[in-house]
Amino acid sequence: MANILEHIDSPADLKSLSTEELEQLCEEIRQYIIRCCADHPGHIGSSLGAIEIAVALHKVYDTPQDKIVWDVGHQAYAHKIITGRREAFMHNREMGGISGFPKMSESPYDSFGVGHASTSISAALGLAVADEKLGSPAKHIAVIGDGALTGGLAFEGLNNAGGLKADILVILNDNQISIDQSTGGLHNTLIKITTGKRYNKLKDDVWSALGATRLRRSIQRMVKNAKRAFIKTSEVNSMFDSLGFRYFGPVDGNDVEALVTVLSRLKAIKGPKLLHVITTKGAGYKPAEDNPTVWHAPGHYDPETGETIKQDEKTARYQDVFGKTVTRLAHEDRRIVGITPAMLSGSGLSIMNAEMPDRVFDVGIAEGHAVTFSAGLAAGGMLPFCCIYSSFMQRAYDNVIHDVALQNLKVIFCLDRAGLVGEDGATHHGVFDLAAFRPVPNLVIASPRDEKELADLLYSATFDHYPATIIRYPRGRGIGTPWENEPFDKILPGRAQLLHKEADAKVAVLSIGPVADKCRQAIEEANAKGVGVIHYDMRFLKPLDTDALDDVRSKVDAILTVEDGCKEGGLHGAVAEYLADNKAECRLEGLGVPDEFISQGSREQLFDYCGYNTKDILNAILSLGKN
Amino acid sequence: MANILEHIDSPADLKSLSTEELEQLCEEIRQYIIRCCADHPGHIGSSLGAIEIAVALHKVYDTPQDKIVWDVGHQAYAHKIITGRREAFMHNREMGGISGFPKMSESPYDSFGVGHASTSISAALGLAVADEKLGSPAKHIAVIGDGALTGGLAFEGLNNAGGLKADILVILNDNQISIDQSTGGLHNTLIKITTGKRYNKLKDDVWSALGATRLRRSIQRMVKNAKRAFIKTSEVNSMFDSLGFRYFGPVDGNDVEALVTVLSRLKAIKGPKLLHVITTKGAGYKPAEDNPTVWHAPGHYDPETGETIKQDEKTARYQDVFGKTVTRLAHEDRRIVGITPAMLSGSGLSIMNAEMPDRVFDVGIAEGHAVTFSAGLAAGGMLPFCCIYSSFMQRAYDNVIHDVALQNLKVIFCLDRAGLVGEDGATHHGVFDLAAFRPVPNLVIASPRDEKELADLLYSATFDHYPATIIRYPRGRGIGTPWENEPFDKILPGRAQLLHKEADAKVAVLSIGPVADKCRQAIEEANAKGVGVIHYDMRFLKPLDTDALDDVRSKVDAILTVEDGCKEGGLHGAVAEYLADNKAECRLEGLGVPDEFISQGSREQLFDYCGYNTKDILNAILSLGKN
Repeated sequence: MANILEHIDSPADLKSLSTEELEQLCEEIRQYIIRCCADHPGHIGSSLGAIEIAVALHKVYDTPQDKIVWDVGHQAYAHKIITGRREAFMHNREMGGISGFPKMSESPYDSFGVGHASTSISAALGLAVADEKLGSPAKHIAVIGDGALTGGLAFEGLNNAGGLKADILVILNDNQISIDQSTGGLHNTLIKITTGKRYNKLKDDVWSALGATRLRRSIQRMVKNAKRAFIKTSEVNSMFDSLGFRYFGPVDGNDVEALVTVLSRLKAIKGPKLLHVITTKGAGYKPAEDNPTVWHAPGHYDPETGETIKQDEKTARYQDVFGKTVTRLAHEDRRIVGITPAMLSGSGLSIMNAEMPDRVFDVGIAEGHAVTFSAGLAAGGMLPFCCIYSSFMQRAYDNVIHDVALQNLKVIFCLDRAGLVGEDGATHHGVFDLAAFRPVPNLVIASPRDEKELADLLYSATFDHYPATIIRYPRGRGIGTPWENEPFDKILPGRAQLLHKEADAKVAVLSIGPVADKCRQAIEEANAKGVGVIHYDMRFLKPLDTDALDDVRSKVDAILTVEDGCKEGGLHGAVAEYLADNKAECRLEGLGVPDEFISQGSREQLFDYCGYNTKDILNAILSLGKN
Repeated sequence: MANILEHIDSPADLKSLSTEELEQLCEEIRQYIIRCCADHPGHIGSSLGAIEIAVALHKVYDTPQDKIVWDVGHQAYAHKIITGRREAFMHNREMGGISGFPKMSESPYDSFGVGHASTSISAALGLAVADEKLGSPAKHIAVIGDGALTGGLAFEGLNNAGGLKADILVILNDNQISIDQSTGGLHNTLIKITTGKRYNKLKDDVWSALGATRLRRSIQRMVKNAKRAFIKTSEVNSMFDSLGFRYFGPVDGNDVEALVTVLSRLKAIKGPKLLHVITTKGAGYKPAEDNPTVWHAPGHYDPETGETIKQDEKTARYQDVFGKTVTRLAHEDRRIVGITPAMLSGSGLSIMNAEMPDRVFDVGIAEGHAVTFSAGLAAGGMLPFCCIYSSFMQRAYDNVIHDVALQNLKVIFCLDRAGLVGEDGATHHGVFDLAAFRPVPNLVIASPRDEKELADLLYSATFDHYPATIIRYPRGRGIGTPWENEPFDKILPGRAQLLHKEADAKVAVLSIGPVADKCRQAIEEANAKGVGVIHYDMRFLKPLDTDALDDVRSKVDAILTVEDGCKEGGLHGAVAEYLADNKAECRLEGLGVPDEFISQGSREQLFDYCGYNTKDILNAILSLGKN
């Protein structure tokens, strides 16, 4: 059969395809994604599972007038490929290439930008109400995974859409896994359906009817399929019925023919509807089907063998330092528990989970709950380590303020993926945390410069003189400082560390976090060029070490702050406030993320773009040293 | 019968009371709350409705070992009164008195501090898991209203508790109203139950059995009641069943005998349980029952007649300025819609709702959804005005970043209750907004100094040169500037206004928001004492008017910033960064909320406490002018 994909430049090209051609197209897209992602790492597992959904939606609906909102969006590669971005997909997640997530500025087919979970229903409802008010007959579809459905925002969206009797379709893409295994009461109910006799009998029927050739179809079967799809399943439909939605399903979401039939019928039904489809994460690619957690985002791999290609592993990942250290601490202190909203492996908490599963809580995609639940644990006498990626912690801002800090409850927040994260791009950079949390009372905010300091901060924060504490550290690997079997050093809150001092220093560098190492390199070069520098690893944004500040401002003409976070309000802001309030005579310059959203790219490319890579730090030192 | 309440110093004193005595106690508490709140305004409606729940819980459970978490907490007055705070309740919400909400530092019976909605299930789950890990047999109860149940956090808590099969009881206190009418799909389902024949027949039975004397009881009836409570209601139980909860109810939640019976039985049932009780907001006090929205927090009133006592009304409330202005703008621009998460009357959006209900959306207590829904509306071509109280906006921090600003969608955020709010206290002060949102790109952040400037900013923000815009203004009344029938003045984003300038000025005052008027008074006094001042109303935190800054720093020795928000990171922070980066020679001092959580009190008391009332501004000017 001819290659179909190379003729698909927009969804219009799908309209005339037969069922057999649609199936071939799905297979071609599958192979294309597997091939492209081998060299350009991305979120392959979810996207392989959602190919048939994307193809069926664009076949049945009139996009971009009809609007599809993909929740999270890392399942939307097929959507991107068939909406004019087939070639561009070869530069998925690269600087200057396309984003790994739907993005409004990238394509009219991306009706709403995504990246964080659980936003799709609220956004689709907004689009639907807008179209209704403006007199457009457009249809609106939100595609949401069972993992993202546990986020409270999705529930709020369902409840509001049901109340408004809005004409929207929610497709629940149920693959029983978010990144790690899904959890929660609703998950158990979904499991009951998909492991139940009824669904599996239906599914077996379909597969045996398909037989060996998979392409044999008949009008009869289509009718049968369609009827099946409208059978209501009692265990879960009432949940959605209670919220004002009509429930349809479950349907095999990797069967494009069934999907096209069902969607064509649903298109004619008004009001809030939920279609429950069952998909396989990594569908059609055995390595990914067999190990969905690894294949959520496997990095580089050999597309033929499915072997993942390990990157340079000389130094430890901060996630492993965290995971091993918290496990070590937990062995000594029975109050310690670990909490994560669906980031068990990503955060490294899986290490503790393997040794003491009864003390680790993966609460599902539910950042707000993760924090308030941790607050409850702390109020009950436990010492919770709550692990959340920095950009997702934005979703629990009030919970940290209202449920933890205000009540002076001691939770240790481990903010992973802080700073620029690289290829995941604008939605995932963790650049606002320092500025956002600095004004919150009763908090200590710290960031370690290397593996050892991370271990020491985790250890130190367990002591009583630490209130609730945020420890933020980046994605990726440390610089090789020995830490694993080292004794812990106790760090007092708010105590900076002097790393470098020259008697004739004209410039002081104050850094927080692992950018300290870039500063070290820059300072060596500056010294070689005759500019003396004092360098403090501030370690704490709050409390700020004003002794260190007084020390440097009495000695130098200029201070340079360097942080892997937004320039406004963070370390630069804290130092500026101190200097201005104390009428310091020295000049300040701040390096950090400028006042704009930063797109995807490698971390080094992005450091360059934002102007705080080693050479930028060097230039700033030299320029300040000259004045 | 003797007075019972005066002998209740702790829940232990309830244990021996008979049913008749419990009923009398409830009535005495009711009268006590009505009397106290007449002079000391508070949240009377919810608390009157929840008296029987509080009495029954403390009768049946062994508090404080068993732990009750009250969601929001403004329904917990009876709980406070019977847990040792009967006398203290006469100073409810006063400075130095007790908080209007449960607060851990106030009483061991307050297991968890509250104020914002939907936290109780997550917190109770944390407490339950902690007690289980620590070997305590304590029981855990969350009491949550039907309004707060629409918050996604409550859903996340239910889902996690159901998944963990935790031994907790959730009491759904269903009064069909949050502050305004509840909304949403779930609400419609709850309404179906409580207006259904089954529940009303049960209820009528109870009331006719009670007959005229209300106190006639029999073992027979208790058994009947108990049986009824365990009848499952099909419409809603599956919703909670899907989440792993056993549903019981509905029960008349203003019938203390029925509650005691049901709770005693539920105490023995393990696992996640939800008891649905129906209460009347304002129960037992006719004026409050008849008009629950007004009586949510009616201010002063005459306890005999139920007439509310109007305060001085010479100037307009900012809420009315907002409501009338947005209505005026909406008449001219069909793209304008209004969105609020359950703050229809509080925000003044009710004014627009009365004139054009099809363009106003009360989405229920769901701040995150309110923002993402607004983003969807904006993506669909509408111009949404999204009204949220400042402290509740903390719950939608990520939605503003990820769904609005990152996509450059234009939503106009009207942040009401910004700054110190007064008697509602620590949970409700809106003091973090300026600092938290300043680092977010693609945002304009403004705060008007008076009624006219609010109207002008609302008008100006509709123009194309404004991106997404936050306009923050306080609770309460303006200073009397004419605004209602005035023509609008267009304000350019980032343009400060010079209010006062003396040629020999030594000090510059930069204010944002209505504190401008306090500054004006202080400056007049300072002038009288011979200190010349320049005063800018900055109007915008972002973009910051650096021309105004350059103007003043070339002329004065010292700059004083004044803001009704936290001192770190807001206006003070922005000015400090600009001055430090530009090596300004002038000294900076910032007045604002210090780095601590501020308790309740009148707004004037709190301005004094925080040190930015008129006299503090004057002192700062004089002191800066001297140096």
